[in-house]
Amino acid sequence: MPHSDVLVIGGGVIGLATAWRTAQRGLSVTVLDPDPGRGANQVAAGMLAPVTELQYGEEPLLALGIASNARYADFAAELTEATGLDTGYRACGTLAVALDADDRAELHEVHGFQQRLGLDVEWLSGREARRLEPMLAPGVRGATLVRGDHQVDGRRLGAALVAACVKAGVTLHPSRAARVTTEGGRATGALAVDGTKLTADQTAVAAGCWSGGLEGVPAAVRLPLRPVKGQVLRLRMTTVRGDFPGPPFLSRNVRAVVRGVHIYLVPRADGELVLGATTEEEGFDTTVTAGGVYELLRDAHELVPGITELPLAETSAGLRPGTPDNAPLLGPTALPGLVAATGHHRNGVLLTPVTADALAEYLTTGQLPPEARPFTPTRFASPESPA
Amino acid sequence: MPHSDVLVIGGGVIGLATAWRTAQRGLSVTVLDPDPGRGANQVAAGMLAPVTELQYGEEPLLALGIASNARYADFAAELTEATGLDTGYRACGTLAVALDADDRAELHEVHGFQQRLGLDVEWLSGREARRLEPMLAPGVRGATLVRGDHQVDGRRLGAALVAACVKAGVTLHPSRAARVTTEGGRATGALAVDGTKLTADQTAVAAGCWSGGLEGVPAAVRLPLRPVKGQVLRLRMTTVRGDFPGPPFLSRNVRAVVRGVHIYLVPRADGELVLGATTEEEGFDTTVTAGGVYELLRDAHELVPGITELPLAETSAGLRPGTPDNAPLLGPTALPGLVAATGHHRNGVLLTPVTADALAEYLTTGQLPPEARPFTPTRFASPESPA
Repeated sequence: MPHSDVLVIGGGVIGLATAWRTAQRGLSVTVLDPDPGRGANQVAAGMLAPVTELQYGEEPLLALGIASNARYADFAAELTEATGLDTGYRACGTLAVALDADDRAELHEVHGFQQRLGLDVEWLSGREARRLEPMLAPGVRGATLVRGDHQVDGRRLGAALVAACVKAGVTLHPSRAARVTTEGGRATGALAVDGTKLTADQTAVAAGCWSGGLEGVPAAVRLPLRPVKGQVLRLRMTTVRGDFPGPPFLSRNVRAVVRGVHIYLVPRADGELVLGATTEEEGFDTTVTAGGVYELLRDAHELVPGITELPLAETSAGLRPGTPDNAPLLGPTALPGLVAATGHHRNGVLLTPVTADALAEYLTTGQLPPEARPFTPTRFASPESPA
Repeated sequence: MPHSDVLVIGGGVIGLATAWRTAQRGLSVTVLDPDPGRGANQVAAGMLAPVTELQYGEEPLLALGIASNARYADFAAELTEATGLDTGYRACGTLAVALDADDRAELHEVHGFQQRLGLDVEWLSGREARRLEPMLAPGVRGATLVRGDHQVDGRRLGAALVAACVKAGVTLHPSRAARVTTEGGRATGALAVDGTKLTADQTAVAAGCWSGGLEGVPAAVRLPLRPVKGQVLRLRMTTVRGDFPGPPFLSRNVRAVVRGVHIYLVPRADGELVLGATTEEEGFDTTVTAGGVYELLRDAHELVPGITELPLAETSAGLRPGTPDNAPLLGPTALPGLVAATGHHRNGVLLTPVTADALAEYLTTGQLPPEARPFTPTRFASPESPA
C-alpha cells in the first residue's frame, strides 16, 4: 500500500505547486489526478491583477493577492530554471478602462479607495489611455493604470509545475479520488477509483470545485464549494492576412466593466489574446453556449473594436471553485490530517505561489504563515458543528 | 498509365455526384481528390431554397434550382438505397422573416415577384409566423412560407456520395491535380501531385474555387472563379441542462435579412442547428474570425433570441466558388475534352442533382439538357478569345 507523508488530491496548479513546495522541504508527496496540470488553469486567462480587481470589503484577500503577486517573478523564474519550461509570465501592467460617464464615476471611486490603501495606481484620461493602447475604442472616458499587475499563461504554468513536481520527486498517481479514507477520527489518505489505497500522514484537498463533494469527508467538515462557470475565448493577434501591421495589437492587460459585466483581454507574448470571462451559476456544466460567446464578443468589441479582424482560435469553459465569501480555503480543516488548498474562485492562478508556500509551511511545521490565517476553512463552521 | 473515359478533378459533392451519375451510364470514371466528400459541402448549411432565395434578374438560375430541388427527394432516396447512408434530407419548408417595417416592405415586394412567376409562396402575418415557429422574436412583422424549400446535410451527403461512387465502380485517386495535361489542342487528363499521370477521353473540372487556378489550362480557357468566404456556426438544439423542453426549437429553415445581411438557421433532425453565413471577399482564407462569429450570433439573436441558451458546437469557414454572374459553369469549355462542373457559389448543395444529371448527359451524349444550356462557361468568352 503506497504511503506518503502528504497526499494531494487534485493536480491543478494549486495542488501541483503545493506538492512541489512541500517536496522541496523534504517530505514525500503523492498527487492524485487523472490529468495533472489541466485543472481550471487550462481555461483561466492568467491575469495577475490583485490591485486592479480590488473589491470593497475584500481587503484581506487583497493582501494575500499582493503577497502572491510579489512572489510571482521569482516563482516563475525558479520553475523555468528547474524545468527549462517557459511559464508565459509577463510583467506588462494592467489598464482598467471606463467606456462611459457612469463607468468613469465608478472607476474614479475605486481609484480613491485604492489610493487610501496606499496602492500604486495611476489615473489616466481617455486620451492618455489610448496613447498607451491605440486599439481602445475612441470613446474611452478614463482609465487606471496599475504597473504592478501582470500575467502568466495558466497552461504553460500547469505544464511547468508537472515537470517541476517530477523533478522534485513527487509521485504522480494518474487516477481520481473515489473517497477520502479516515480512521479513528483522522484522515488517512484516499482510495482511488483505480482501486489503489493511497495512505498519507496528511491529506491536502486541492480538487477545485469538486473538493466539496469528496466522499468520506464527515458532513460537518465538508468544504463549502460550488462551481462558478466561466466561458473564455482565445483569439490570435494576427489579421486574416498575416501579422498585425505596426505596433502590437495590445501591450498590457485591458479590463473594463461593460453593462455591469466584467470583461478583460490578456495579450500574451506568443500572440494569443485571451478574452474572458462569463460568470454563471450553472452547476457542473462546461458547455460553451452561443450566448456566452456572443456576450464576450459584443462587450470586447465595444472596448476594442479591432478584435473583429482577429482569428477566433478557441472557445472553452471552466469551473471556478466558489466559496461563500469568495476567498480561498487554506490550511487545517476540522478533521485532523485533512488540509484544504482550494476555493480560489477567480484567483487560483494568482494565488498559486502564496498558497503553495503557506501549505508547505503548514504541512512541515503545523503553523500557517500570518497572511494565510484569515482563510482557514473552519471560519465557516457553525456553532453546533463538532469543530 | 491509368486511363478512364472520364476524369473528374475535385471530389466535393458536385464532382462525386457527376462521377456517380456518369458511372451509372456505363463510362469508366476516376475522381482525383486528396479527401473526397469534404469540399465546401463540409461547411454548407444545406438549405435547398431556390424559391425563398430568388433574386431579381436570376430567373434562369431559379429554373435550374427548382429543377434540382424537384429531383432531391428521389436523389437522396436513391443514395440511401445504394449505400445505406442517410443524407439528412428533410422536407421541412422554409420561412423568410421580416424583423421591421423596411424588411417587411422588401419581403412583400419579393413576394409579389414570386407570385408573378407562379411560385408557391404564402404570405403570413408576424403572429402566424410565430405560431409556426414560437422561438421567433416577438417583434416579427411578417413572413413568407415556402412549403417546397427543404434541406439536406452537406456532410452526410458527401459521405453517401463517396460510398455510392465506390459501389458504382468509380476509381478514387487520393491526390491533387498538379496540372491539366493537353495534347494537340485537346485536354488529355491530369498530372497528380503524387506523380501519377491520369489520362481520360474527357476531363471534368469540379474543383470549386480552385478550378480557375488549375495549371495547364490555356489562358483563354481559364474558368473565371473567385473564392467567396463564408463563416458558419453549428449549435445544438438542447439547453445547457439537457434536451430542450416541449416542442422542437425550430421546425423548418428560417431566413431573414438583418441590417442588410442575410442570415439563416437550418435545424436538422439530429439536433444540429446550422447558422450561416458571412459573405466575404478575402481570397483563399478560411480563418474563423471574432467579427464573423460575433455578427452571426448578433443577427441570429435578433431573429431567434433563445439561441443564447444553446451550446455552440463548431465554428468553420469555407470557400464558395463565385463567378462573374454568380451562376454555375456547366458543360464544355473552349478546350476540347475539358468540361466544367463548378462555380455554384452559394448553391452547390442545391444544384448537385441537376448538375450531375446534366454533366452525365453531356459526357455520354455530347448534348447538354436544356436547363443547363444557359450556363456553359463559354458565355464569358471575350470576342478576341480563340473560342
